[in-house]
Amino acid sequence: MPCTPNAVLTPRDLREQIRSGGFAGPTAGMGGDALQANIVILPGAEAADFLRFCQSNPRPCPLLAVGAPGDPALPSLGEGIDLRHDVPRYRVWRHGELTDEPSQIADLWQDDMVSFALGCSFSFEDALTRAGIPVRHQDAGRNVPMYRTSLATRPAGRFGGPVVVSLRPMPAADAIEAVQICARMPLAHGAPIHLGDPAQIGIADVMAPDYGDAPDIRPGDIPVFWACGVTPQAAIVSGRPALAITHAPGHMLVTDIPASRAEARLTGVNA
Amino acid sequence: MPCTPNAVLTPRDLREQIRSGGFAGPTAGMGGDALQANIVILPGAEAADFLRFCQSNPRPCPLLAVGAPGDPALPSLGEGIDLRHDVPRYRVWRHGELTDEPSQIADLWQDDMVSFALGCSFSFEDALTRAGIPVRHQDAGRNVPMYRTSLATRPAGRFGGPVVVSLRPMPAADAIEAVQICARMPLAHGAPIHLGDPAQIGIADVMAPDYGDAPDIRPGDIPVFWACGVTPQAAIVSGRPALAITHAPGHMLVTDIPASRAEARLTGVNA
Repeated sequence: MPCTPNAVLTPRDLREQIRSGGFAGPTAGMGGDALQANIVILPGAEAADFLRFCQSNPRPCPLLAVGAPGDPALPSLGEGIDLRHDVPRYRVWRHGELTDEPSQIADLWQDDMVSFALGCSFSFEDALTRAGIPVRHQDAGRNVPMYRTSLATRPAGRFGGPVVVSLRPMPAADAIEAVQICARMPLAHGAPIHLGDPAQIGIADVMAPDYGDAPDIRPGDIPVFWACGVTPQAAIVSGRPALAITHAPGHMLVTDIPASRAEARLTGVNA
Repeated sequence: MPCTPNAVLTPRDLREQIRSGGFAGPTAGMGGDALQANIVILPGAEAADFLRFCQSNPRPCPLLAVGAPGDPALPSLGEGIDLRHDVPRYRVWRHGELTDEPSQIADLWQDDMVSFALGCSFSFEDALTRAGIPVRHQDAGRNVPMYRTSLATRPAGRFGGPVVVSLRPMPAADAIEAVQICARMPLAHGAPIHLGDPAQIGIADVMAPDYGDAPDIRPGDIPVFWACGVTPQAAIVSGRPALAITHAPGHMLVTDIPASRAEARLTGVNA
């Protein structure tokens, strides 16, 4: 019988395997119920504006944790986290251009680096699946379709640009239930921000997403749109800071927080 | 300065005025924040089935209170309520046919009469208005449009028939917020049961409602449908009991319960 490491690896074991170079792949389905996070790392000069950008745009940029300047730990999200190594793949951006995709960033770390952990959609997709609501791109083995919209983020310093949304088509009754489920998960982008006519938020052709794969829309489905974690990456591209580091798409930080308890643990509100 | 009786009348004073024949009009806007209720009164032989019908169909028929057989009081909804007099106008149904619209029913009361108080849409429309969400039929001074759907109630004995829905058109972002607001108000019909394409629930022409006035649909609105308190009246018409008494449309029982505290007070769940 082959060993099944995913079933036994704790999030901390998984991070240690990543740190030692033993794993560098996408983290979807890894770490069991552990909350996963989008990561952005910026030099001190840009960090204050980016923090303000996240706080002003909580739907696309739900802040899970912010590191102390120069400190690669995020103790509220897990013991021993070291952001110089613990993300399986990073993206390095210089003046808004993608320049590298390394598996560690120890050589780029600076004394004033500030790290940001942002909520991601994995948690709410799990909650939808548990409720019996179809997540069509998962069923089809595709990436979620994402679109730049005509909705603007609230800018902060150099950071701004459009709200990017992800699309999950589903029947109307499921959309009504999904609003209720996701409204209780503000750290995972919260309730949808639009449903129905895509043109109302500046999407001309729903079959031609700006990121990800084309949607699988079944008869009777309506399009339901969530604010998306690609929004902060788009803000970095448009803001063109001298240096920024993010996770590579799908290659997330795996935290110690059970996703089902994240809202209670990280906001102090009992679920 | 003219006196403004609505501003000073307590619900109990208002009921006494109704009982004495001093007021027999519609109750919209009366009694301040007091919860208003749909009323159904049935002889004992029909009451058990109707109770089961309501419990099986809580979205269209949210039960606020059920009277003891033969007792015209509803003590959980207000001190001194006497259902033989305290509704400003009644409807009398014999074998499913509307036969009279009296202002009191003392002469029809029987020793085995059971009264049912059901939640109504006034509470959630107030909540939507407070949230800045348009309630178009109110703004247009019209009655809410209502439709028989292809959705069936769960039948109980002689009571059954279609779910009747009310329509409130609004922008998609408001619909998303309305789902969240109304989901917290199960005693006022709860979350919408459909949005988007009316044909999916058997409504061929949204401009031709089965009850009420034609909708006022603005550019960018989507149709949002709630289960409606007309559903139990339709069940009485189709069930054809020998005798049934209801309130006349818009002429409700005004209770002592503040609408904003109804869910907590009547369900034991703290809001």
